Amino acid sequence: MSIFMKIIRGEIPCHRLYEDAHVLAFLDINPVSRGHTLVIPKEPAVTLDALSDDAAAALGRALPRICRAVVKVAGCPGYNLLQNNGAIAGQEVPHAHVHVIPRYPGDEAGAGLRALWRPTKLDPSAGAALAKQIAEALAAG
Amino acid sequence: MSIFMKIIRGEIPCHRLYEDAHVLAFLDINPVSRGHTLVIPKEPAVTLDALSDDAAAALGRALPRICRAVVKVAGCPGYNLLQNNGAIAGQEVPHAHVHVIPRYPGDEAGAGLRALWRPTKLDPSAGAALAKQIAEALAAG
Repeated sequence: MSIFMKIIRGEIPCHRLYEDAHVLAFLDINPVSRGHTLVIPKEPAVTLDALSDDAAAALGRALPRICRAVVKVAGCPGYNLLQNNGAIAGQEVPHAHVHVIPRYPGDEAGAGLRALWRPTKLDPSAGAALAKQIAEALAAG
Repeated sequence: MSIFMKIIRGEIPCHRLYEDAHVLAFLDINPVSRGHTLVIPKEPAVTLDALSDDAAAALGRALPRICRAVVKVAGCPGYNLLQNNGAIAGQEVPHAHVHVIPRYPGDEAGAGLRALWRPTKLDPSAGAALAKQIAEALAAG
């Protein structure tokens, strides 16, 4: 059983921020900034794509409320949400989770989280073909 | 009006993947990896915390469906979701949006997205005090 399932079951303590029937939010014990929060569905999906519609809707509904409270108390002018699926994406605990990471003035260079971003340019015809494939996969359910 | 609002209104074209009453998903025209997708609420909130309960629930509900289709077609073994709020967090378009970023074998070192992660250790008593403040802010709505 993952450590997050044990936290949900109360077998491991946490600094709890919010809980409802579907969602639990608590402070990350290895924060990359002050107020770094984890928001998890109670449904034991390993990755976000495995989450049921109802669990995902409940998670989505809770996130802005949690972010408002974190921002209010942390006093941060911005924040990132980061959600990692699969070892290749940096996932360490096999239970889907959303990091809410406050950002503060002066942390641009030495932040606990820095996203290095190397954009390319989408080729219009390759993009159209890829979009068609994904749209069809989505429509097929 | 932001470029995303113009895309929602059909005034600017996009490689559309999914659309419902609350959500639109399309390919990022400056992808950091193949299949890089943007998922946006139609509600014109600048940041996630400003999103209404209903719009946030609809966004949450759509995300796993969209991720499943992207993963299926892109054939990626993992992916990140990244959502930036505020200039300090790297937000460029003033309309809340979620990046879905496929990750591929071999991209660990030179990926279009690299999240540098510098964790600290949460002091238990400071953590308890902070959690209490945030939990109270949440309970107060």
